[in-house]
Amino acid sequence: MKKKLYIVKIGGNIIDDDTLLQQFLSNFALLNEQKILIHGGGKLATRLATQMGIEQQLIDGRRITDAETLKVVTMVYAGLVNKQIVAALQSMDCNALGLTGADGNVILAHKRKHAQIDYGFVGDVDALNTHLIHNLLQQGVVPILSPITHDGKGQLLNTNADTIAQETARSLSQQYEVELVYSFEKAGVLLDVNDETSLVNELDQERYATLKAEGKIFAGMIPKLDNAFEALRFGVSKVVIGKAEELQLLVQGRTGTTIQLK
Amino acid sequence: MKKKLYIVKIGGNIIDDDTLLQQFLSNFALLNEQKILIHGGGKLATRLATQMGIEQQLIDGRRITDAETLKVVTMVYAGLVNKQIVAALQSMDCNALGLTGADGNVILAHKRKHAQIDYGFVGDVDALNTHLIHNLLQQGVVPILSPITHDGKGQLLNTNADTIAQETARSLSQQYEVELVYSFEKAGVLLDVNDETSLVNELDQERYATLKAEGKIFAGMIPKLDNAFEALRFGVSKVVIGKAEELQLLVQGRTGTTIQLK
Repeated sequence: MKKKLYIVKIGGNIIDDDTLLQQFLSNFALLNEQKILIHGGGKLATRLATQMGIEQQLIDGRRITDAETLKVVTMVYAGLVNKQIVAALQSMDCNALGLTGADGNVILAHKRKHAQIDYGFVGDVDALNTHLIHNLLQQGVVPILSPITHDGKGQLLNTNADTIAQETARSLSQQYEVELVYSFEKAGVLLDVNDETSLVNELDQERYATLKAEGKIFAGMIPKLDNAFEALRFGVSKVVIGKAEELQLLVQGRTGTTIQLK
Repeated sequence: MKKKLYIVKIGGNIIDDDTLLQQFLSNFALLNEQKILIHGGGKLATRLATQMGIEQQLIDGRRITDAETLKVVTMVYAGLVNKQIVAALQSMDCNALGLTGADGNVILAHKRKHAQIDYGFVGDVDALNTHLIHNLLQQGVVPILSPITHDGKGQLLNTNADTIAQETARSLSQQYEVELVYSFEKAGVLLDVNDETSLVNELDQERYATLKAEGKIFAGMIPKLDNAFEALRFGVSKVVIGKAEELQLLVQGRTGTTIQLK
């Protein structure tokens, strides 16, 4: 039988709120199985870029990672945020170890190619080195992944944390029974974004298509759900989306939205 | 017989010069034994602090690491510098993996206690987790240590990179035949700081005491040499100090200053 492995993605808004973050981390530390944490960036990087006078370029509403912005996200994500999380977890008896995709060649990516837009130093994932992650897990080490990857030719790349979570979950599902948790500030998939009682408990592909067509699921939730379904299609056992504060209930399936193919 | 292990410290001035750094890294990647790299910070952190409007406090000429400065050094050392080095080495077929002392609880330290001066978040090393480092080395992974440690209670600490190199070398000398290399912009210990032909090829404790008394060895070289002798007293096989550009010659004992107890 495969061993259970929790892969938990923690969203940016939680990173920005120290009280919520500490509360989340103490819940994460208590998860009684092998586990991996993937964190987003939060607003710290934008704030630091402003302080440094680096202008943020947006094309069609999408942020461009130019060379200076890449330095900022590397400092904030791989440096400050990742190491603060690692140190906090260590104090909670959780043997955390922070990684970017470059460390141990854990995540290889390539610079995004796009016919119209040059996104700059943004990476799309090619391959995961599950061997090293597996070895760390076996030693009782808890990998903490920051959303920076590399191309193997010396170039660091800014990479979407939701995608990293999905790709990591997929790759490790060959060896583990993987449960993927997308945790953030909301209770899960909501029919009315301002009403937490409108929570969708279970979401399959058909209903997802309907809700999308009706405009009830939109914006940032769409790539998150696309990632969730992709993970399930490639062998991940379970995907849950919900509130970071309720991590224990989420993994017990007692709250949040459970994603299923059908 | 113990396996050979090179522990190489690279100084700040090389970090600041991209050409010298790339040249050094390609020489380091070619070292044909197990190896660990420890890097200093360079001037990037000071520059970033200035850009962010964080005033650098100096007491008796020593920099104080207040909470804001700790954030800056964590971003620069553990984030930007460490990950740029890791990505560059990966492109040179060297399977580098960056670590702070918090990662995997590799280096435990305590906040420096001093009767007169509060140095802020500066750490003095208590213990090394050689088990994890040993396991990584056995997998062919090359640990890249940045000079940030933690206290095990959630606090990151700014720690002298020369000391980290010495402590790591000492701890690992039980399992390995350790050669410690302090590499920087100078040819080694010089009798006249402006004349590279005044290089001291071999330095023992007695001559060190004499040269110190004569004022020929001073400033930053003193803690570096104290660290070197300390390493030898605690089982490190060999300590060499010299020019980063000449790493291959240094490890062959063909240049630089070789430190010996007597």
